[in-house]
Amino acid sequence: MHFTSEQRLDDGVLEREFTLGEIPGILWTPASASAPAPLILLGHPTLGLRRMYPRLVARAQQAAADGFATATIELPESGDRPRWPAAEQARADLRRAMEAGEPVSDEIIDALVLPLVDQAVPEWQAALDALLSLPEIGGPVGYSGGVISIGVRLAVVEPRISAAVLFAGSFVPRAILEEARQVTIPLHVLLQWDDEGNDRQATLDLFDAFGSKEKTLHANMGGHTGVPQFAGDAAAQFFTRHLR
Amino acid sequence: MHFTSEQRLDDGVLEREFTLGEIPGILWTPASASAPAPLILLGHPTLGLRRMYPRLVARAQQAAADGFATATIELPESGDRPRWPAAEQARADLRRAMEAGEPVSDEIIDALVLPLVDQAVPEWQAALDALLSLPEIGGPVGYSGGVISIGVRLAVVEPRISAAVLFAGSFVPRAILEEARQVTIPLHVLLQWDDEGNDRQATLDLFDAFGSKEKTLHANMGGHTGVPQFAGDAAAQFFTRHLR
Repeated sequence: MHFTSEQRLDDGVLEREFTLGEIPGILWTPASASAPAPLILLGHPTLGLRRMYPRLVARAQQAAADGFATATIELPESGDRPRWPAAEQARADLRRAMEAGEPVSDEIIDALVLPLVDQAVPEWQAALDALLSLPEIGGPVGYSGGVISIGVRLAVVEPRISAAVLFAGSFVPRAILEEARQVTIPLHVLLQWDDEGNDRQATLDLFDAFGSKEKTLHANMGGHTGVPQFAGDAAAQFFTRHLR
Repeated sequence: MHFTSEQRLDDGVLEREFTLGEIPGILWTPASASAPAPLILLGHPTLGLRRMYPRLVARAQQAAADGFATATIELPESGDRPRWPAAEQARADLRRAMEAGEPVSDEIIDALVLPLVDQAVPEWQAALDALLSLPEIGGPVGYSGGVISIGVRLAVVEPRISAAVLFAGSFVPRAILEEARQVTIPLHVLLQWDDEGNDRQATLDLFDAFGSKEKTLHANMGGHTGVPQFAGDAAAQFFTRHLR
């Protein structure tokens, strides 16, 4: 892990860009911390860190105000990272199905999401290794955001993650629905009820499948990107309850 | 409205029992209030006030800590109030269907719930008239609880109610689902996901139907009566956001 730039934000939060091998990432730490901070990994959709930056930094600053360090990495195939022909094909198939008004088949969803999960999850785990070796970062660790299938897999395979806020809004392969039964950590799932691009029933099925004894679904209005402020506050309270 | 008894609880909350014509009720007001308090009407299932008292007083005390007065009345046919033969018949039909493992028909649900809503709603409105005439009670007014169909009808017909927390967990007639489209006040709906006696899909359909621009569904684990403490806190925050 190599830090490549560093700046203080208005509120004193320290923002550092880094690379982990080929993968760019960003780490935010609270303005002042007397002890190693608990960490929240900030998941995000496959739109690239640059485009997601405004929303990510807002989440990082809210988390820092609650005493959390946050970090994110570029997803495979996003931003300036190389594209895979097979994934390009899956995206083209998806576009064709949606433009034709056809249901999106399980095959398309699998081809689109499963390779992404398979590659992204070990990358998040490598980032976690590096982040937890920093003296200013302690534990426990949470995961917050989408791609929801990445969050599910991480919750299953990564014992250092002890609570997760999962954002619905992307396709969920059948295999991930099955993996969800193995999740046991506390979960807080955000669903934008009127998100037209989201398969609401798939989210409800996924929520039902989770094996966790504490799981909460918060459904709100406001469209895909319109998560209300009070819903963000509730997610922050969830992490404060479980990671502090 | 006649007060029939009065006591101070441990935390200084003033609890007064009253009758409104034939209908018994309870009013709780905060220990100290400098201005007329906003009011939350505490809805509850048809188990009778006496049986519901422990849960009601806990909700009243939490609300009082947030500066709210709360009040509740006995529902028609509950507690010591007279039974109706038609409703007894509907309950017997329901028991028979459930014991036989048959689906509960729309006819049974209508016969069970609609007469209750038709009678209870004007009673809540009469209680509201009386409560708002007390100098220590101001506005705005919220409704909190079940029977969810009573809450829906009140939200439609009673303009003095400006926000509602609705507890899923009772049958919802088709006609109430239609009325739900006319609801426009902010709503916070609580669903116990693993409540076996509740028709989860009916609650999701009802939530979908509400016309409100701000509506939130909180689904949690813990069975019918096991609403987690943090979910109660979130409902309290909803009222603080809308009624203070």
